[in-house]
This record gives sequence, C-alpha cells and structure tokens, in this order.
Amino acid sequence: MGLNKESGLKIGRGTPGKRNLITDVPGVKVGHVTIRDGADVNTGVTAILPHEGNIFQDKVMAASAVINGFGKTMGLVQVEELGTIETPIIMTNTLSIGTAATALVKYMLQQNEDIGVKTGTVNPLVCECNDGRLNDIRGLHVREEDVFQAIANCAEDFEEGAVGSGTGMCCLGLKGGIGSASRVVKLDGQEYTIGALVMSNFGGAGRLMIDGRHMGQEIKEKMDEEKDKGSIIMLLATDIPLSERQLKRICRRAGVGLARTGSFYGNGSGDIAIAFTTANRVPHYSKNAIIDMKMVDDDKIDPVLEMSAEAVEEAIISSLYHAGTTTGRAGRVQRGLKDFL
Amino acid sequence: MGLNKESGLKIGRGTPGKRNLITDVPGVKVGHVTIRDGADVNTGVTAILPHEGNIFQDKVMAASAVINGFGKTMGLVQVEELGTIETPIIMTNTLSIGTAATALVKYMLQQNEDIGVKTGTVNPLVCECNDGRLNDIRGLHVREEDVFQAIANCAEDFEEGAVGSGTGMCCLGLKGGIGSASRVVKLDGQEYTIGALVMSNFGGAGRLMIDGRHMGQEIKEKMDEEKDKGSIIMLLATDIPLSERQLKRICRRAGVGLARTGSFYGNGSGDIAIAFTTANRVPHYSKNAIIDMKMVDDDKIDPVLEMSAEAVEEAIISSLYHAGTTTGRAGRVQRGLKDFL
Amino acid sequence: MGLNKESGLKIGRGTPGKRNLITDVPGVKVGHVTIRDGADVNTGVTAILPHEGNIFQDKVMAASAVINGFGKTMGLVQVEELGTIETPIIMTNTLSIGTAATALVKYMLQQNEDIGVKTGTVNPLVCECNDGRLNDIRGLHVREEDVFQAIANCAEDFEEGAVGSGTGMCCLGLKGGIGSASRVVKLDGQEYTIGALVMSNFGGAGRLMIDGRHMGQEIKEKMDEEKDKGSIIMLLATDIPLSERQLKRICRRAGVGLARTGSFYGNGSGDIAIAFTTANRVPHYSKNAIIDMKMVDDDKIDPVLEMSAEAVEEAIISSLYHAGTTTGRAGRVQRGLKDFL
Amino acid sequence: MGLNKESGLKIGRGTPGKRNLITDVPGVKVGHVTIRDGADVNTGVTAILPHEGNIFQDKVMAASAVINGFGKTMGLVQVEELGTIETPIIMTNTLSIGTAATALVKYMLQQNEDIGVKTGTVNPLVCECNDGRLNDIRGLHVREEDVFQAIANCAEDFEEGAVGSGTGMCCLGLKGGIGSASRVVKLDGQEYTIGALVMSNFGGAGRLMIDGRHMGQEIKEKMDEEKDKGSIIMLLATDIPLSERQLKRICRRAGVGLARTGSFYGNGSGDIAIAFTTANRVPHYSKNAIIDMKMVDDDKIDPVLEMSAEAVEEAIISSLYHAGTTTGRAGRVQRGLKDFL
Repeated sequence: MGLNKESGLKIGRGTPGKRNLITDVPGVKVGHVTIRDGADVNTGVTAILPHEGNIFQDKVMAASAVINGFGKTMGLVQVEELGTIETPIIMTNTLSIGTAATALVKYMLQQNEDIGVKTGTVNPLVCECNDGRLNDIRGLHVREEDVFQAIANCAEDFEEGAVGSGTGMCCLGLKGGIGSASRVVKLDGQEYTIGALVMSNFGGAGRLMIDGRHMGQEIKEKMDEEKDKGSIIMLLATDIPLSERQLKRICRRAGVGLARTGSFYGNGSGDIAIAFTTANRVPHYSKNAIIDMKMVDDDKIDPVLEMSAEAVEEAIISSLYHAGTTTGRAGRVQRGLKDFL
Repeated sequence: MGLNKESGLKIGRGTPGKRNLITDVPGVKVGHVTIRDGADVNTGVTAILPHEGNIFQDKVMAASAVINGFGKTMGLVQVEELGTIETPIIMTNTLSIGTAATALVKYMLQQNEDIGVKTGTVNPLVCECNDGRLNDIRGLHVREEDVFQAIANCAEDFEEGAVGSGTGMCCLGLKGGIGSASRVVKLDGQEYTIGALVMSNFGGAGRLMIDGRHMGQEIKEKMDEEKDKGSIIMLLATDIPLSERQLKRICRRAGVGLARTGSFYGNGSGDIAIAFTTANRVPHYSKNAIIDMKMVDDDKIDPVLEMSAEAVEEAIISSLYHAGTTTGRAGRVQRGLKDFL
Repeated sequence: MGLNKESGLKIGRGTPGKRNLITDVPGVKVGHVTIRDGADVNTGVTAILPHEGNIFQDKVMAASAVINGFGKTMGLVQVEELGTIETPIIMTNTLSIGTAATALVKYMLQQNEDIGVKTGTVNPLVCECNDGRLNDIRGLHVREEDVFQAIANCAEDFEEGAVGSGTGMCCLGLKGGIGSASRVVKLDGQEYTIGALVMSNFGGAGRLMIDGRHMGQEIKEKMDEEKDKGSIIMLLATDIPLSERQLKRICRRAGVGLARTGSFYGNGSGDIAIAFTTANRVPHYSKNAIIDMKMVDDDKIDPVLEMSAEAVEEAIISSLYHAGTTTGRAGRVQRGLKDFL
Repeated sequence: MGLNKESGLKIGRGTPGKRNLITDVPGVKVGHVTIRDGADVNTGVTAILPHEGNIFQDKVMAASAVINGFGKTMGLVQVEELGTIETPIIMTNTLSIGTAATALVKYMLQQNEDIGVKTGTVNPLVCECNDGRLNDIRGLHVREEDVFQAIANCAEDFEEGAVGSGTGMCCLGLKGGIGSASRVVKLDGQEYTIGALVMSNFGGAGRLMIDGRHMGQEIKEKMDEEKDKGSIIMLLATDIPLSERQLKRICRRAGVGLARTGSFYGNGSGDIAIAFTTANRVPHYSKNAIIDMKMVDDDKIDPVLEMSAEAVEEAIISSLYHAGTTTGRAGRVQRGLKDFL
C-alpha cells in the first residue's frame, strides 16, 4: 500500500498510482516467501515478474547502475550488454544467491525446453543484501523450493516491510525490508506509471531523513548505537517506452532518492539500481532482423527522471514504515520506524 | 570564507578547515577573472591550481565521475585512462571552452619546452556551464588573456558567488556561481582535509533544500517562474592518499551532496565531478619503472566518503549564499539567496 | 578509393560498397584542408558530415568507445549521455583542438540562431592525434578558417593518405594518415552499408600486420628505428538502424580491426572509436514526447559486428597504402607503405 | 606446458616463463575436476588460487574488463568497486554457476569463521562458458563436491585442453578448453611474470588465426559447418605491482590477443577478462587506515601491455593445441587442432 494517508508521511510532489506500488505498472507482480525459524533465522525470498507472459521468449528492455558496488548481484553483465531482462528477478540474502541462481535456472529450464538444446543459455538475475545482523546467514536457510514458491506467490498485491527477502534487513538503524511506491507521469496526453521496489538494508543510525527532515538524531538517542553495514536493491519498472540508455539514466536517479533518505553510499553498501520497461519488448526468436522500439525525447524526460528519484525515495521510507520491530540473531532487537513517529 | 557563522546556515555534521575553502588543502590555489560589460556580458574564468609546482612535471592522481553527461567538459578521457591531472583546471562558459583550451595549451607550452618536441602532448582540463541566461554567450567574450590572468590570480584566498566563471551562472531559481567548503578528516591520528569547489548552474526554482529543509517553495512564490537549464562542476581536492579507484568513489559522492540541495540530475544538466589528491604524485619523467603510492583501506574510508558529499553540499549552498542579485542579458534579474533569508 | 584491386592488398571476407569509402553511407561527406609550409609544417583538418541537412536540428544517433584513453578528443561526455551527434565531426592535431572547437562553435552559431538564445548550447565533437613527429605542433598552425574550409570541402569523394588532418601522422613506423573503407551487409533482404574512416597515427615500427601477415619485420630492417607514439581515431558510419547500445558494440569492434593491424593499444595511444547511424534521427525540437526508432535484433547482429571490425582494419591499411613518403620537421623522413610492397 | 617447441607453433616475440603457464607467477595454482559420464556428460570445474595463503584475509588487487557481455560471470560488481579478489576463482559451465557459487561460499565459510558473524559477507568469483554443444548442460551435472575437489587439486602443474571446466568447450570450430601461457617482463632490472589462463569456447569455424596466419579456411573445408556460439574467460595473473586502473588496462589487452586468434567478439560470446596482481595485497583487517602499494609508471608500461596481449593469444592457441578430439552430446564430434597440423 506504499505510504498511505494514515502514515502521516508524504514524500515529494508527484501523484502515486492506484496502489502506490510497483505493481501499478501493468503486468508487474511481486511475491514473497518469508523464512523464520526461532530467533536466529530471519530471511526469505522476494520475486518480481516483469510481465505475465514467458519472460525468456519476450524479454523486457532493461539497464542497471551500480551506485556503489560492494555487492554480489549477479546477471548485470548481460543486462548491460544486451539491454534485456529474461527471467524473474529474485532477491534474497547475500550468501544464498547461489541457491537462488540454481533455482531460477531450474525454473527457466522447466518453462523453456529449448534452453541449452536448441538455443543458448539463460541469464538469471539475482540480487542480494546481507541480513546477517538478524539472520543466521551462515546457515544458508534459503532452499530452492523457497524460490519456486516466491515466484508462484507473485501477485499485484503484496506486503511491504519485514517480509520476503526483507525479513532480516536493517536500515538507518531501524528495521528495514521491502518497500514500494509508484508515480504517474503524463506524456503526449497519456498516463504512464513508474514503480519502485526496494530491499532496504543500508545506512547508519542517526542519519534518517524523511522528505528532507533530518529525523535520525531523535531516533538515535533512543537506541543502542551500532555501526550498520548494508546495501540496497532498487528496482524501477515502467510502461513508458525508454531506450537502454534512458533506462540507465533513471537507474542513476535512484541514487538521488537514496541520498535523500540519509545514505551517503557508504563503503560497505551494495547500492544497485535496475530498471526495465514493459513497453519495449525484445523477442527471443524474431523473424526480422530489424525491430521497432520507442523512446522518450530526452528533452521531455525530466518528469520521468524526477519521479524515478521520488518513487525510490518513497519506497525506502515505506520499507521502514511497514517494517515492524523484529528480534533476531543473538537476541538483537531492531526497532521499527513506527515506534518513533 | 565558505558558510561562516553569520550566515546562520549549517550543513551536515563535519568540521570545516581553517578557511572552509578548497584551498585548505595545502598547495591548492584558486583565481578568478570576472568579465562584465554592460548588462549583456556576465561571464568569466576560474582557474584551480592543484599544487604550486610544475603540474605537468609532477602530476596529481585524479579521477572523475559523470553524474549526468549533458556537458562539454574536455580532458576527462585521459584523466580516466592515466589517473592524473597535468594542467591547471579551467572553468568558463560552455561556448568558450575552445578558447580556454587554446589558452591553457599555450600556457603549458610556455611552461614546458619539452611538450611536442622531446615528449608528447598535454591534456588540457577545461570545464564549463552555460551562463546564457544572464550572459551573451554567443558573443564569445572570454579571451585567451583572461585565462592567463585567472591562472596568475590564483591564491589561497578567493571570492565566492557571482565571480570568475560563476559570474553569469544561475542555480535553483537563484543566482548561482562559485562556492567552496572544506572538511577535516582524521586518519591514523593525523588530520587531513577534503575541499570542494563548485560552479553551480543547475536546478529549477522551487527545489532548493538547505540541510534537508525544503526552502524552494517560499522562494518560488516570490519569483517569476522560468524553467532553468544548467549544470554543475564539482571539484574535490584532498591531501588524503587515495588511489584512482578511490578518487572515483569520492566523485560519486558529489552526487549525494548535489541531490541534497534539490537536484534530481535533470536532463539538461552537465553534472561533472573531478577529484584529485596531492598525496599521490606521478612524475612525468621517472627514473624507475615502479613507483610508490598510498591509499586508504576501504574499510576505513567512510568518513572520507561522507565528508566529500557534505563538502559538495555545503559548497553549493555557499555559492548561493555569496552570489548577489545580478541583472543580466535582456534585463533579466536573478536574485541572490540572501534576499530570502 | 579505399584499397582497390591494383593495390594487391585484400582485407577480410566482406564486400565493399561502391566507393569503398565511408561516404558509401548515403549522406555522409568528408572534406580536407591540408596545411603544409616548408618542412616543419605538416598538419591539417578533416571534417565529416553525418548527413546533408542541419545536424543540430536533426541529430544522428551515436555512441563511442574509448579503447585506450591517452587522448584529448572532446565531446564524448555528451555523446554518451544523450546518444547523439549534433555537429560535424572535426579531426585535427592534438594541440589545435581548442581552435577547432571554437571554429566549430562559430560554425554552429552561424547555422543556428537559436543556440544560446532560445535553446541551450551545442556539443562540438573534435578528435585529434599528435602529429608532432613531422609537424611543428607547438606552432599551432591550424586556424579557424581551416576548419570552416574543411567543412565547406565536404564531398562524397575525398582523398586518403597524407591529407587533411592526416598530413603529418605516422603509423606503425610508416607514413600514416586518413584511410577509409566500407562493407555491405544484407538484413531482411535489404542492403545496408557500414563505412569506416580512420586517422592513423599509432604503433611501432616492425609490428605491421596485413590481413594476418606479419610484415613489420621486413619493413623495420630497412628503417631507422624510432619509438613511435600515437593514436588513432576510428569513425564508423552506417545506415543500419542501431540503438545507442548497439552503436557502442560496434565501436568496440573497431578494437578488433585495430589489433589485427599490429596495435596492442599502446600506453601512449589515444584509441577512440565513434559510431553513428543515419537511420535513427533525433530531432532537436520534437512535437511528441515519444519517438520511434529501430534497432537490429542482437541475435542477428553478427554480420554488423564483423564487418565493422573488418572495415576499420581495411581503413587502417588503406591509410598506409595511400600515404606517400613525407619529409617533415627536423628533416625527418617517414616512408610510405608502397615503398615496401 | 603451454605451447612447447614440439608443437611447432610460436606466438609473438616474448619470452615465456619456466613452465609457460599462469603458475609461473609465484603462488598461483590451478586445479581441475573433469566430469565425464557417457557421451552426454562432458563438463567440469577449474579452480585458480591467487596465492597460497588465506585469500579472504589477504586479498589480491584486481580488475576486470567486459570485452563482450553475453555472459553470466558473477562477482565482477565488487571486484570493480573494491579492486580486490577475495576467493579462489571458479570456472564451470553456464548453468552450474549457482552450484559453484554455493560451494565457493561454503568453502569460504569453512575457512573463515568470522564471515557473516564478526565481519561482512564474501564475494564469490565464478566464471562460465556454455558447453551445451557437447554436454548435457540442462542436467546440471556439476556438484558442490566437484568445486571443493577442484580447489583441493590446485597445484603448480596442471593439464590443458579438454579438462576441468574446459572438458566440453568448443572454439573456432575445433575442440577448445583450458589453455595457458606466460611471459617474462623486466622492469628496473628485475624479472617479473605475466601469466594467462583461458577457458576457450568462442568463434566460428573457418576463422582461426595462428600468429597472424589465417588457418581457418583449410580447417573448415574438412569439417561439417556449424554456427558456434560461445564465450571466453581470460584470466591474467602477475607479480608486477599494478594499480586497479592498470590491471583494467591489461584486461583490455586480453581483447587484442583474442582478436588475433580469429574472434570479432561475436554477439553471443561472453568475453570476460579478469586480472590480479600478487604484488599489491589488501588485508581484510588492517591496523592502519593508510596502506602502501606500488604501481608501474605508465610511461614504462608498454611491455606489460604487449605481453598481456601476447600471453592471452598464446593461451588460446595452447587450449586448442592441447584439446583432443572429443565426442559429446548427440554424438557430436569436435575435432582437435592437432588433427589439422
């Protein structure tokens, strides 16, 4: 539900979509598997489907930006070269990306009998943050089944906060996790949507900014201090037709939203942005050598850039707003933002 | 003087250096030539010397980051490949970079008789923003002599605001220009300095944020609206020993400071960051093939990253604070921030 | 005329276009001004027009790749960000890029009264190599008039070898300069053209390879040895519709052609590739926010990639073939390839 | 043994090290596990140890270059940001990278009890090529045990050709696989070594070049034609002290060696280069914030660049020379180069 009115929090100047979620972009779906077992296991998987069809056969145009590269996200090399995403996007904890990659490969093999036989291979896109503060990350508690289930759970409505891959994440000294938001942009008289979904796990206590207001200090005084290490995955989806170059431009604006919530892109943070558009599709098998696409005149792209930044900023705050206080590994308690509002 | 106490403005949490200017980094000097002629000519040149010696013979380690590339800065290709700056850095208006480049080449030829004869060529580093709102930029009013004079004017103390290459710049609906700030960082018990100098010319009216506070709206209501186009050049200097990779990391943090003043890296903005360290020098003629350098353990680099972001943020606000209301081309009036404080 | 049959030299397996020149791409034109004055002055200017209309109003889609960045080419920052070229491309000697930039700005201002008044600025694209071995490069012998004249001289037929900006260039121990070649590629039953134009100034004596054959050694034995320093500018033009990402892919293949002529991308070489397509145009003023473009299905792009590499390889050999023995600064004699065939 | 004298093949002009293998760089070790089961299973794992100590505690300085990014190599994001490798490097088939990543994570957790508890996570570096032509790649036949065993098998002497991760690879219409070579470079009177190791799986039949000679055509005539798809992983190791920027420079020269063996960096090829130096170590826990490193004066780096290109070129030819004719999936026969010499 993003940041609804009852939260009392408002980010920026734009107009949210119907759900104020990334799934306001038609066809995009999100699914979670939350894994909790005793105090020590707090982790999970979140899956994002770019559209409802066969993603390998009908790829979405995409790009990425590494804002700070202390991260293990896999799949970006090919996204950058070919400008496409061809699998669901999986998010999980850092040490489970191998398991998630294998599961995603198996899922793709099952969906596509041609892979590895009549055609080439497939590029699994798996993102991660380190939930080791609250989760026994060494235990490798994510199983391949969890990935399959997260994909199966994908729907237009989904929860935010301490759920899915966000279950064990911490952010700005608070409980972090999954957050989402959307913005409506009008181009040539037609309404389009930009959606953001983040897995927030970055930043130190005392640095939180909400719509510009430095709120960290008051939070910090009520907390045990601890140097946080972390990361953030920032996904942007849109139905605006953008070229790969332009998708990279909006990925860089994720860094604007991130900076405005209190991050200075810390050394230990893997701050990764990935954007795709459902409006430019690339078929795996095309009859013709030359294919049509559309893009935005860059001279008119400013609302797209600004709303991308704003959607990421709000998605981060929404992840904090929805994440409840969580007790994790070694009895550590990470408090939710609502405790301080 | 940066943002002094009487400004009533404070950015961030760090400690400024003695002058709160980029020249707090030992050896760094800055010089201006301001060009005004009637209402239509408002432009100039600003020069930055990385150190007091022969910069071609004794290069400083450097890197850059293109935050948004709608700009014409020249010299970055070689800075990126070789990791060095070998000339003074010249800033001027967009259409005068050719003149500035020729002047800088002539200056370097004069200083170094070996260039083009016994050794190779030289890489002039020239940055620009578009001052066309207040300046008759088509008139190409910058002359080669102005560049020589700006270099000759370089000193530890220098003015900020509507001066030098900042004379005709506009920023966030206000008068922009040159701003500077510095921060002290302690590493291994020793104090080092990070200095920032910006030429601010970006952003739309109504977006200004000062230390998190959205101040744009109140300013906007008192102004004629006009869509601003612009850019920002952000120079970072330090005496901390950093590798080229690390200098690029701090360049990216300039984007944090920029985002926090109200920019979303608009399409038409050439947002360019360049950083150098005086602590790693690369000789033009070295006796040995293998040379020593130093860098910071990345695990301890966070204060360097954060203070780089903060110095840029403050330098931008300082450029606004020091820039007085200016009347320019076609009778346009660009008001200074002080009118609103 | 590229490498004609009487040269006895053949590169690769592809089919050249009608002229075997970059101007086989419809609309592309090339013009030279050769500057010689006594033994010491051997330099010039070469201009390339992407099409016959107003290039600022009707930009061509473009990208670049820095194979090795020891070079001073200006304009690439914006080419990368916006994916367009909006001026003629000017090539000259290293120390004259400022003059060439100023001249190109003046040319653009003359052609476009809106620049700097009703619209923003313009991004001059100026490339260079160091002709200091044969030319008194410190003398700055290129004048603004030479740039205007090179643009005025642009035509479909043009000379190769020691002409225009190639007048003083040296390559692989031989006389280098301007070379060109083209290749025909069939897509969806239609013929398209890839054209290459190089300014060759790289490589050491003894390393020349012609279509795989190491010919350098025999040449080297007949020559005074001298360590060459240099660079190469490699322009690729096509009427195949390619996205910015794909244009960058073909720029990288320029490095394949370059490697096969004997370069290992030496430290001192500014090896820069720039590619544009006349098939995707971007208007400066567009009515609509969303514009159409076309691209090649990457699964069918291999002939485009291979022929890009081959056209560059042949253009380099053609530059050597057409460049006659030249006597330059300090009585230095640089022999032409034909002396050895 | 690289290309020994009895092969009759010689690449370039440099001097090989003692073994003519990457393990001529002191401390570097290589280990294979070859997996064959009937005609359909032809795959494996190859591990490379950068040095003999704890790699996580004592990282090697590193960089990478994506020559063409149609590949799934994981770990590069962090290598680029931090400039270090902190695990063994694992190579396997494309669809098994998840399994290899999980195994490598488990290996690192076993070696380092602090990971995920007292310190952050670890960045597994896993490279791949698609061996689907000869191997039942959909069967995911690589197990975690194979990765552990490949690491355990690491030694200074190792086999080349159809072995380890190269077991099922095809290259230039021939049987490909693992190849290696080394070159000695003298700097400041001291001998250093550059070593290359490749997993070759790229290129079409008919394109092979050996030391410049186009040999493909004669091979192609004796073969069934088939469009090959593939990739190549190119590892460079050295004991020359190089900065991250310089390591990236030598990675780009891998593209020179690759181009000279017949590749034009085809669309479907994941051409990835990774380089590390054992001479610049970065401790995981350092006492001091400022650490010493060394680099080469770029003005003297040409032999390093050239020998990097040459070592890669020879390693590719060596991979072909040592790979024997192999029958694989669906009865496909891939012939070895020796059949044609």
